[in-house]
This record gives sequence, structure tokens and C-alpha cells, in this order.
Amino acid sequence: MTDGEATRAGPTWMRREIAETPDVVERLLDEGRADIAAAAAAIRAANPPWAMLVARGTSDNAAIHLRYLIETELGIPCGLAAPSVTTIYGAEIHWRGGLVVAVSQSGRSPDLVAVVEAAQAGGAITVAIANDTASPLVAAAGHLIDCRAGTERAVAATKSYVAQLAAGAALVAALAPDGRLAGALGRVPGTLRRSLAVAAEAIDDEAAIVAAFAASERSIVVSRGYDHATALEIALKLKETGRLFAEGYSTADLSHGPIVLSGPGIPVLAIRPDGRMGPEVDVAVAAAARSGAQPWIVGGGDAVVGPHTIRLPLDVPDGLAALAFVLPGQLLAEAVARRRGYDPDAPPGLQKVTLTR
Amino acid sequence: MTDGEATRAGPTWMRREIAETPDVVERLLDEGRADIAAAAAAIRAANPPWAMLVARGTSDNAAIHLRYLIETELGIPCGLAAPSVTTIYGAEIHWRGGLVVAVSQSGRSPDLVAVVEAAQAGGAITVAIANDTASPLVAAAGHLIDCRAGTERAVAATKSYVAQLAAGAALVAALAPDGRLAGALGRVPGTLRRSLAVAAEAIDDEAAIVAAFAASERSIVVSRGYDHATALEIALKLKETGRLFAEGYSTADLSHGPIVLSGPGIPVLAIRPDGRMGPEVDVAVAAAARSGAQPWIVGGGDAVVGPHTIRLPLDVPDGLAALAFVLPGQLLAEAVARRRGYDPDAPPGLQKVTLTR
Repeated sequence: MTDGEATRAGPTWMRREIAETPDVVERLLDEGRADIAAAAAAIRAANPPWAMLVARGTSDNAAIHLRYLIETELGIPCGLAAPSVTTIYGAEIHWRGGLVVAVSQSGRSPDLVAVVEAAQAGGAITVAIANDTASPLVAAAGHLIDCRAGTERAVAATKSYVAQLAAGAALVAALAPDGRLAGALGRVPGTLRRSLAVAAEAIDDEAAIVAAFAASERSIVVSRGYDHATALEIALKLKETGRLFAEGYSTADLSHGPIVLSGPGIPVLAIRPDGRMGPEVDVAVAAAARSGAQPWIVGGGDAVVGPHTIRLPLDVPDGLAALAFVLPGQLLAEAVARRRGYDPDAPPGLQKVTLTR
Repeated sequence: MTDGEATRAGPTWMRREIAETPDVVERLLDEGRADIAAAAAAIRAANPPWAMLVARGTSDNAAIHLRYLIETELGIPCGLAAPSVTTIYGAEIHWRGGLVVAVSQSGRSPDLVAVVEAAQAGGAITVAIANDTASPLVAAAGHLIDCRAGTERAVAATKSYVAQLAAGAALVAALAPDGRLAGALGRVPGTLRRSLAVAAEAIDDEAAIVAAFAASERSIVVSRGYDHATALEIALKLKETGRLFAEGYSTADLSHGPIVLSGPGIPVLAIRPDGRMGPEVDVAVAAAARSGAQPWIVGGGDAVVGPHTIRLPLDVPDGLAALAFVLPGQLLAEAVARRRGYDPDAPPGLQKVTLTR
């Protein structure tokens, strides 16, 4: 029995923490202003020719979202670091002049700390997006963006994930030559509040989508672009809390092989962004439907109304929609876990802080 | 019915093509010498501060292997491109001075071609590792390494995957300041021949490992570092041909969440490299065993002999072991598919050439 269970009455910690998300993001965007401006000024001065992001688990999915924003908004080629290159193989990377951003709840995984230490020593500009400011990762990094998400008692990260997305987006917004993203940030908390209300209404314990995912040991979650991260994160939540083999894919990768897994009895959840990416996801949804699978859709205003669609009232550009699109998926994972008889707050064998080297 | 089936007698195309692998790699390393030297000379002259790899599906796994080699042997920060940044979002990436390597069987997927065209126009040095030299990808790239893998009739790529690994490794070897990798390349065909013989002996139709994977709808394949690619590729082959929900993970990522999926009745295949990475994978194998799962191990000389271990007679550095380690996994996927009643050569809904934009 965990501390969480011992003192819990009513909703799970996971569900309560999802509900805190709009307030967490509002606080971060307000109180984090100085952190973000300082990191942005340093990056602007360094003018890095490349960026590398370092993260694990849920934070890795936040990093994948940030990677798209860095490339689309700033034009800086950006990749995800493989920590073992440094920690196991002992490679000497040419860090000088680059930008290295580490994303981590705990800031304690030794592999992430080692990469940031090496990058900082090697002359990269380093930034930590972290929720624990007393951590070795924060000590190693040149700059900090504090997620200010508060304590998270559920092992599965939810509010802190969206806070990481918001921190990354705010950093990119401060660096972007046009003010489009920066101008939209203020609308994020309201969009999250309205989206959460719609999502909570759609994903109650009796919802057909909960029954469908709980009944199958296998499921597929897809999207592409900014929301590739959303698909991976929802799949990870379904794994961690619901113990489902939930595979997260880019719709493009799906068609290069794994579409063969789709078929009758396999629930498919598609995150369908508005804008130019929407029709790309529609192609994958149609392929899944042809295979005999039942696709469920989380979308925005462009999504077609239907019994298997959850439409969120978005009021932000495509690059920020991921902050809202993940909410129904988090609620789904929490409800699926309970329906399958698991405690969403304490998956067996997982700790809140995971140490890998 | 496909052409493959129509003219097939005896072993599947997939099994025959796996068997061709040592000859394919020997030919590539021999006849590809001039291609590789020319690409290496251009890269050396450009001295790129960063590298970006572009690929989809099986080729994406070859690119993941190449990414580790570029970082460990050359110290150049390297990431995997997200084509939608260019093709859907229309971002203007600052390509100038960077290295962009595209890896593709067919060279025909429009998203890969678009990224290479943009990178070439933007002043990057571009290289295509491709098996079809008449393709638009090859036309777009500044340099070509022809995989010379010959026609592949099975939809699932096998010999061409190992050829891609060899092409990437040979390019890195030509650029590496020390001659360790270059000196070992000549031993690769022999290592592949001996490893294939051991693997074919271990993975016959009656083997317990085939029965175990065929009997479960769900399985996990893990490794880390250079062989993270091997785990992902074996998982992809099990998906494509065996239609299993086979999840491929880095052992580090596994412990940050998905280890909860491991348990009784879930076969786990671990690729256990010799050298410093071996003990890291042992930790994951032990965690899987504790969960009640039966781990199967593909390893080298350092792997402990046992009834669930396939030990390959490797004679190459850790950075080249992936070329051999994938062979038992390919044979496993082929045998599992047949045991489950599927034609490994023609998975439903997949084509040899997949076009995504």
C-alpha cells in the first residue's frame, strides 16, 4: 500500500491531479515568466545551430513535442539524445555552441544528469525543465524553468506532463520571431479548463470508450506531428496504469508496417488535430476502420461530430493543442485502470523516481 | 495471392532472403568502396557540426543504429528527422552546414524525398543509403551509397536492413579517427555466416522460442544502445509478419514505465550485447524474470549458456554486433508467422513501397 492509498478518500490522486492541470499551467505561465525570459535571452545570444533534448519516460514525450516546436517555430534542427552514448559508451560529443534541454519531473535520473553535465562542460547552453528544483539535474544545468506543478502523488505523471509542455512552449514562444505563439499562451489555461470539462463529461465510468479499452488487452493510439507526442503519452499512460499493450504511433509509421495489428476487437484512439495535419490522421482512421477496428477520435472544431468522437473547444494554434488533447487520454487511462481492477495511483513495480544510468 | 506466393516453392522468400545476408554485406563492402569513400571525403571536407537522419519503418531502425555510431565514433550530435516538420508544417529549417543522411529501401516515400530536397537546397551535405538507385531520393541527394541488396520479394525487409546497417557502419568507419571499426569490417561477412548457422539451428520450426512467441498475442523485445535498433527491428518484424503486439524498448525506457506489462505468459526477448552494455541489459532481464515472464536471450560470448539463450559467435566490436544480432529475430518472426498461419512474405495491407507525405 502506498502513501497515496493510505490517505486517499474519493477520487484517485491521478484524477485529482489531472483536474489541477489548468491551474498548474496558469501558475507556470505567470510565475515562470522571469525564468523563461532569462533562458530565452541566453539562447538568443548563443544562436545555436542545433538543439538536443534529453529525457526519459513521460518527459520524453514532452521532449518530442518540444522538438517539433523548436523546428517549426525556430528552424533549429533538433533531436532526442541517447544518454547511453555518454554514460555507457563514454563518447566525446562535440557539444560546443549547441543547445541542450533536459526535461525531467524528478531531475534525479543519473543518465540525464550525466548528459547535461557533459554538455555544460563541453560548451553547450543547457536548460533544465524540471519540477524538483533541488535536484542534481537543476544543479548541472545553466538555466532552469521550474514547472511549479506541485507534488504529484500518483506515480503516473499527468499535470506535470502538461506543465512540461507549457514550459517548452513558453520558451519557444519567447524565441519565435513572430508573436503568434506568445500571443496565444494566455488563452491556454481557459482552453484547458473548457477542454477538461468536455473530456470529463465524455470519459465517465460508464462511457463506451472506457469499456472498449478495458476489455481489450491490446490497443493502438495514433496521431502525427505535434500530437505524435500525445499519442505516445496516452499509450504510455494506458500501459502504466491500465496494463494494456497500447502501441503509440505516428500515423506515417503506422502505415509503414504496424497497421497489420489493427482489426476487429482492437480499439484505436486517434488524436486528430485541426489544420493541415487533420486529413493525414483521417487517412489512418479510415485504414483502421477498413481493418475492422473501431476508431475513437479526440479532435478539435474540425473533427466530424459522431458517437465515437470527443471534440474539444480549442482556442489555441495547432502547436499548443497537445496540452488539451492529452487530457481525455489521461482520464481514459485512469478509468480503464480502475475498471480493470488496478489502482491507477500505484502501478506495480514502478516508482515515482526512476534511476537509469 | 502475391507474385511471391505464385512462384514460391520450398522456403519462404523471407527465409531465403535472410540467408542471402552475408553475401549481400560482402558485396556491399567490396563493390561499395568507391561510393563510401566519396561520401566520406565530402563529409570530412564539410566538417558538419550536427547530423540528421531521415527514414521510415525498417529503415528508421537502421537509422537509429547509425545515429549511435555517428555519436560514439565521430562525436557529432545526431538526431532523427520528423518529416512532417517540412512536409506538413512547411517549416524553414536552418540546414546549412549540417549532414543529412536518408535511409530507404525504395527511395520513393514522398516525405523522405521532400526532406532531402529541402536539406540539399538549404546547404546541407546529403547522402542517400538506398537499394533502388533509380529512385527520386537518390536523385535528390548529393551522395549515394547503393546497398546492392538485390530484389527483395518478401514485403518484410531483412537482407536490405542488414545492408543498410553495413552501409552506415562503413561510412562511419571511413570517417572515424581511429581505424578500429574500419579494421573490423572485413570480419563482418564471416561473423554473419557463422551467426546465421547458429541462429538457424536454434530457431527451427520445433523450437520452444517459436512456440512461446506464437502462443502469445503480446511480447516484449528489449536491448539498449547500439542494439536498441535491433530490439525495435525484431519487434517490428514480429508485428508485420507474426501480427503480434510486440513492443520494442530500450531497457532504460522499459524501467521508466512499460515494465508493468511484463508478467506470466508474456515472452520477453533480450538482445544482450557483450561489453559495457551487457550488465545493463541483464538488469532488465532480471526484472522481467521477477515479473514472472520467461526471458529469452540473444547474446555473444559473454552471455551465460542456458536453455533460453542463443549465443552468437561474434568476432566484431560492439558497434557492429547489431548486424548479427538481428538474424535470430528475423528467423523467429518468419517462423512465428507460419506457425500462426500467416504468410510471412505478404502481410495483409502492406506493400513493399509505402508512400507517406
